[in-house]
Amino acid sequence: MKLISLLGATGSIGQQTLDVISQHPENFKLVAMSVGKNIDLARKMIIDHKPELVATGEKSGYETLKAEFPYTRFTYGEEGLTEVATYEKAHILVNAVLGSVGLYPTLQAIEAKKTIAIANKETLVTAGHIVMEAAERNGVSLLPVDSEHSAIFQALQGEKSKNIERLILTASGGSFRDKSRSELKGVTVKEALNHPNWSMGAKITIDSATMMNKGLEVIEAHWLFSMPYDKISVLLHKESIIHSMIEFHDSSIMAQLGTPDMRVPIQYALTYPDRLPLQTEKRLNLAEIGRLHFKEMDFERFRCLAFAYEAGKKGGTLPSVLNAANEVAVAGFLDGKIKFLEIEELIEKALQSHDNISNPSLSTIQEVDKETRELVGSLL
Amino acid sequence: MKLISLLGATGSIGQQTLDVISQHPENFKLVAMSVGKNIDLARKMIIDHKPELVATGEKSGYETLKAEFPYTRFTYGEEGLTEVATYEKAHILVNAVLGSVGLYPTLQAIEAKKTIAIANKETLVTAGHIVMEAAERNGVSLLPVDSEHSAIFQALQGEKSKNIERLILTASGGSFRDKSRSELKGVTVKEALNHPNWSMGAKITIDSATMMNKGLEVIEAHWLFSMPYDKISVLLHKESIIHSMIEFHDSSIMAQLGTPDMRVPIQYALTYPDRLPLQTEKRLNLAEIGRLHFKEMDFERFRCLAFAYEAGKKGGTLPSVLNAANEVAVAGFLDGKIKFLEIEELIEKALQSHDNISNPSLSTIQEVDKETRELVGSLL
Repeated sequence: MKLISLLGATGSIGQQTLDVISQHPENFKLVAMSVGKNIDLARKMIIDHKPELVATGEKSGYETLKAEFPYTRFTYGEEGLTEVATYEKAHILVNAVLGSVGLYPTLQAIEAKKTIAIANKETLVTAGHIVMEAAERNGVSLLPVDSEHSAIFQALQGEKSKNIERLILTASGGSFRDKSRSELKGVTVKEALNHPNWSMGAKITIDSATMMNKGLEVIEAHWLFSMPYDKISVLLHKESIIHSMIEFHDSSIMAQLGTPDMRVPIQYALTYPDRLPLQTEKRLNLAEIGRLHFKEMDFERFRCLAFAYEAGKKGGTLPSVLNAANEVAVAGFLDGKIKFLEIEELIEKALQSHDNISNPSLSTIQEVDKETRELVGSLL
Repeated sequence: MKLISLLGATGSIGQQTLDVISQHPENFKLVAMSVGKNIDLARKMIIDHKPELVATGEKSGYETLKAEFPYTRFTYGEEGLTEVATYEKAHILVNAVLGSVGLYPTLQAIEAKKTIAIANKETLVTAGHIVMEAAERNGVSLLPVDSEHSAIFQALQGEKSKNIERLILTASGGSFRDKSRSELKGVTVKEALNHPNWSMGAKITIDSATMMNKGLEVIEAHWLFSMPYDKISVLLHKESIIHSMIEFHDSSIMAQLGTPDMRVPIQYALTYPDRLPLQTEKRLNLAEIGRLHFKEMDFERFRCLAFAYEAGKKGGTLPSVLNAANEVAVAGFLDGKIKFLEIEELIEKALQSHDNISNPSLSTIQEVDKETRELVGSLL
C-alpha cells in the first residue's frame, strides 16, 4: 500500500489523481491533501478518501471544514502546503498545485526524503538548479506527471542517458494551431479555452495556445533529464497521440503513445517502475484515427516558445521572470484586461527589462518573482 | 570486444550485419561465418573481416576459397553451418540464414550456450516449443533481429511482461498493398519484388506481398515473448515508420520508430542492453514525412495472415507445413511456375491435407517439412 499526499487536490490533475487512487483501493491511499477554494468539492473528497490531514487555501475554508469533520486534522495557507508536502506517513507526494507557490513545499518534501510526482512545472522552471541539487543530495526521485515528460521517462526505462541523441517533445499547437498571427489578434478567452485534445485547467490551456506551456516543458525537460537545450526539440503533432519521444544515437526512436488521458501519466508516476491496469474511457485505436500529422515547429508563430528556449539557455533568474510574467499576463487575459497577443508582448517586455542574476538563491528567485509580478501587473 | 559468428553472411541481413561490425571495429569482430553461393562476395568478406572459420554452402566453393586463403579454416554443407554456429570463441551467433536449414544449427548453438541474435524466422515458426525450451534450459537469450520483434523487444526494456495487454505488429502491406484481390491476379514477379519501404531479399519481399511474412512474425512473436495469439494484433501502417508497439494494461503504448534500416535492429541485438552510435544514411524526420497512416488489417485480402494465425493457434506440425508450403510456393512463383495468388492456394491445400501432430520432435518436424515440400513441389 502506497500512502500518498497530494498538493492541489481540487485542481484538474488533483481530481484525476484521486480518480486513479479510487481505482486502486488496494494499492493506494490518500493520507494528506491540500485543496483550493472549492470547499464543496473538498468536502466530497474528504468523505470519499478520508485523508488524515487537509490543508485549505484560506482560513474560512479551514474553519468551515474543521467544524464538519472532527476526526480530520486541518491546516491552511502556505504553512498548510508544507505540512501536507512533508506529511510523515506519506511515501510519495503528488505536487499538482498551480504556479510558483509549489516551489517551497517541494523543497521541504525533498528534504523530508519523499518521492515526488511533479506536475507543478514552475518548481523546476524557476528553481531547477536548486531542486535537482537537493533531490540528488537526498537521493530523492522526481517522477514526471506531465504527459510529455512521462512519455520520455517511460521511453527511458531500460535505457542509458548517455545514448540519447535528443528528446523530441510533441506539441498539439493548442486552441489556435490553425490560426495565423494576424488571425490571433481578435481571439476571445472562450475560444482560447477550447483545447482540441486535452481537458485541462484554464491557465495551462492558455499556455498551450501561446505555446508557453511547451516552453516551460522544455525547461522542465532540461532539468528532469539533465539534457542540454540543443538536444531538446519540439515537433508539432496535432493529434497529441505520440506524447513525446527519445531519439538514441543509433537512430532508434522510442515513443509513448496513448489517448489524451492525464490519468495514465499520473498513475505511472504512482506505480513506477511497475504498472497497474487502468480503466480508461477509450483505448487508443490507431486504425480508427487513421492518420497522425507532424509539422516543423514555427518559432515566429509561437514566439513564447522562443522566449522560453532563450530564458532557459541563459538561465539564472530569467526563467523565473518568464514564468511570473506569463502567470500575470495569462491571468490578465483570462480577466479580459488584455488581448491574446499582449500576453507575449508583456513577457517580452519583462524579459528585456530584467538584469539577469546567475545561480540565484531561493530568496532571490522569490524576489524576482515578486518584482516581475508587480511590473507586469502595472502594465495590464 | 564481442566476438561474432554469422550464419548467412552473403544474404541481405548478413551483409548489413557485416556493415554494423565494420562501423565498430573496437566493439565487434567477426570470427566465423557461413556464406552462400556468391563466392566473389565471400572472398571480399574474408579479406575485409578475416574470420577464422568460413563455411560454404557447397564443396566447390569450399575448394575455391581454401586454395586462396591458406590461413583461414574452411568447412562446408550442413555440418559447416553447425560448426560456425557453435564456434567456440564466439560470444554471439547472428543467425541470418534463410529457411528451415537454420533450425538445427540454432539448437546446437543453444546447447553450446551462445547468445543468439535470430533473424531466421523459420527456426521459431517450425520448432518454437523446442527452441524456447532449450533456450530456457541453457539460460540462453534469443535476441530478435526482425525490425518488428526488435521494436517490441526495445519497448519491453524496463517493463514487465505481466503488464502487457497486447503486442501490435505493424505491417506495410508489401508491394501490392493498394491492390484489390482481383488486381492481384495478373501481377508479375518483378512487381512483387518492388517493396515500397524495405530493401530485403527476394523471398521475404514476396512474403511481404502475401502478408505471410507478418504471419510468420506473429508466430515468432508468440514464442519470443510468450504471448498468446489473441494478444498479438497486426495493424496496417504503410510507411513502416512505427516498427511495432506494446500496449500495456494501463493503456500506455510504447513504440519504436525509425527509418527502414535493418542495421538498427541488427546493431541493437549486438549491443543489447546498451546502444552504440550508428551512421545511417538519413535520420527519421517526422516533420518531413508529415503523415503516418494506419488501417485495420484485412484478413480476407491477406489470407496468408489468417492461415498463419490458424496454424499458430493449432500448433503442432501445422506451422511447419505453413512454412514449408510457403517456401516451395514462393520459389515456384519466383521461378515463374505459378501465379501470385496460387501461392496462398497451395499453402491452403497443404494445410488442409495435413494431419496435425501435436508437440512434434525435431525429426517429426523435419519429416513433415520434407513431405510438405514434396507435396507442394508436385503441385507446381
